[in-house]
Amino acid sequence: MTEPLQIHRREPDPNPPFTRVAIVGLGLIGGSVALAARRQWPTVLLIAVDRKDVIERATVAHTIDVGADDIGMIADADLIVLAAPVSENERLLADEIPEIVTREVTITDVGSAKRHIAAAARRLPQRLAFVGGHPMAGAVSPGFEHAHADLFTGKPWILCAEPGEALTRVRRFASGLGANPVEMSAEEHDRVVAFVSHLPQLAISALMDVVGTNTGAERLGLAGPGLSDSTRLAGSPPEMWKDISRANADQIRGALDALIDALRKLRDDADRGEVLERVFRSAQEWKSHLRS
Amino acid sequence: MTEPLQIHRREPDPNPPFTRVAIVGLGLIGGSVALAARRQWPTVLLIAVDRKDVIERATVAHTIDVGADDIGMIADADLIVLAAPVSENERLLADEIPEIVTREVTITDVGSAKRHIAAAARRLPQRLAFVGGHPMAGAVSPGFEHAHADLFTGKPWILCAEPGEALTRVRRFASGLGANPVEMSAEEHDRVVAFVSHLPQLAISALMDVVGTNTGAERLGLAGPGLSDSTRLAGSPPEMWKDISRANADQIRGALDALIDALRKLRDDADRGEVLERVFRSAQEWKSHLRS
Repeated sequence: MTEPLQIHRREPDPNPPFTRVAIVGLGLIGGSVALAARRQWPTVLLIAVDRKDVIERATVAHTIDVGADDIGMIADADLIVLAAPVSENERLLADEIPEIVTREVTITDVGSAKRHIAAAARRLPQRLAFVGGHPMAGAVSPGFEHAHADLFTGKPWILCAEPGEALTRVRRFASGLGANPVEMSAEEHDRVVAFVSHLPQLAISALMDVVGTNTGAERLGLAGPGLSDSTRLAGSPPEMWKDISRANADQIRGALDALIDALRKLRDDADRGEVLERVFRSAQEWKSHLRS
Repeated sequence: MTEPLQIHRREPDPNPPFTRVAIVGLGLIGGSVALAARRQWPTVLLIAVDRKDVIERATVAHTIDVGADDIGMIADADLIVLAAPVSENERLLADEIPEIVTREVTITDVGSAKRHIAAAARRLPQRLAFVGGHPMAGAVSPGFEHAHADLFTGKPWILCAEPGEALTRVRRFASGLGANPVEMSAEEHDRVVAFVSHLPQLAISALMDVVGTNTGAERLGLAGPGLSDSTRLAGSPPEMWKDISRANADQIRGALDALIDALRKLRDDADRGEVLERVFRSAQEWKSHLRS
């Protein structure tokens, strides 16, 4: 069922939605935004803020035009992309950006939780238009060194904002990077993402921890490929997820409660297997709806 | 880090541990036992019991020599491999085999739970020597059509029996099929396998069910590749797992309790993230011990 390899020759778009894009945080996502924007709009000025060594690497590779470890770099951009950890994005939006940016500008973020930062955005001065964003294109390996221009190709990019000029332009920006923009409220985003992303991450890490702790390294060698495949997410970075968990704690609690409840029913029915049969059939059905 | 492709030219073994092997159940495992045995010991007579259509396909493909849907076929074997669902293996061992088999014979099984069938084996007449077995080489897709001769290559094959002639010969048989025999008690097997195999399977199916039920088919399309990778096991057949769950219910309950406890701690700490940090670091460490 694999499609034949196609070489996509995308023509650069001569009419970019923004001309000076500042990216705060050149990690996997921020770095991939830079690479995809560079390919799509070669004339756009790409500015970045990150640690000095990351900026140097990105400048040498011509991934960005200019950069520094100083947030002041973003003052002249017409789009600011917040791609730092979610709590840092929120702090920048609430405290530093209103001081630094004195012109009209559009700001977006790429964080995995949207209500907290939307609340901060409602207190912004009117010249600063915020559009919450979340490209659904993660990977276990973080960092600029894993960034690539195709990270967003064909992937959903959730946008949370009131209709208007800023939303329209950020939608064009996300499309230009290859993604499929999907609009919803910050509340809906945080609820859905708690289930499709945060719960799986927490559950898989807990599963790997529990299995390892109860068997030990030697017996773990008995596991078949099923456990290894299932626990790819167990390599995810704790710092990032600690931050996400705090930003979406209430929804994550609700999602964990739902899973705990399902596991408890399986537990109580283990010697009959009737719950198991129902759960497995439902799981098979939902699994068939997943993008592979 | 991928090794160069090697063509393994295994010389057939002219000295088989058994000369007439009867396999009851030509599914993924039973079928692969037949294929691997045929390759390793071309002179061994392979007898099989399964539905008529499966037997016909296996006979036409020369995977087996003779077969029928009648358990009476096994009477003259010197090794009987029980590869039906676990409850059926147990029933055959307890009720039918002592009536049918009047000669000295070795019996092994390939089921995912070992205490129940070991208890049934202790009531066998002395001419029937039982060695519990469990090749750790599952796959999501069941059935003879997915069987292959390399399914066991390099995989652990757990054996549960007292030392003696029967264990020695079954160990040679498992090695000949390409597996690495590992010996342990039925109690230890059931405890370890509850964690490395049964718990992951139940947890992943419950996760997929909970995620799907709480998001619906359309929103499920927002999930990134992490969810799809993590839930490959959600395609596993319910009938087989219902049977396994019943045969290892107490150990499965203990393993589910451990996971529920871990998830509850993550839940209660969601807005602090300190449990999360500990769990994620431990999970990363255990993950590194897994065969990939």
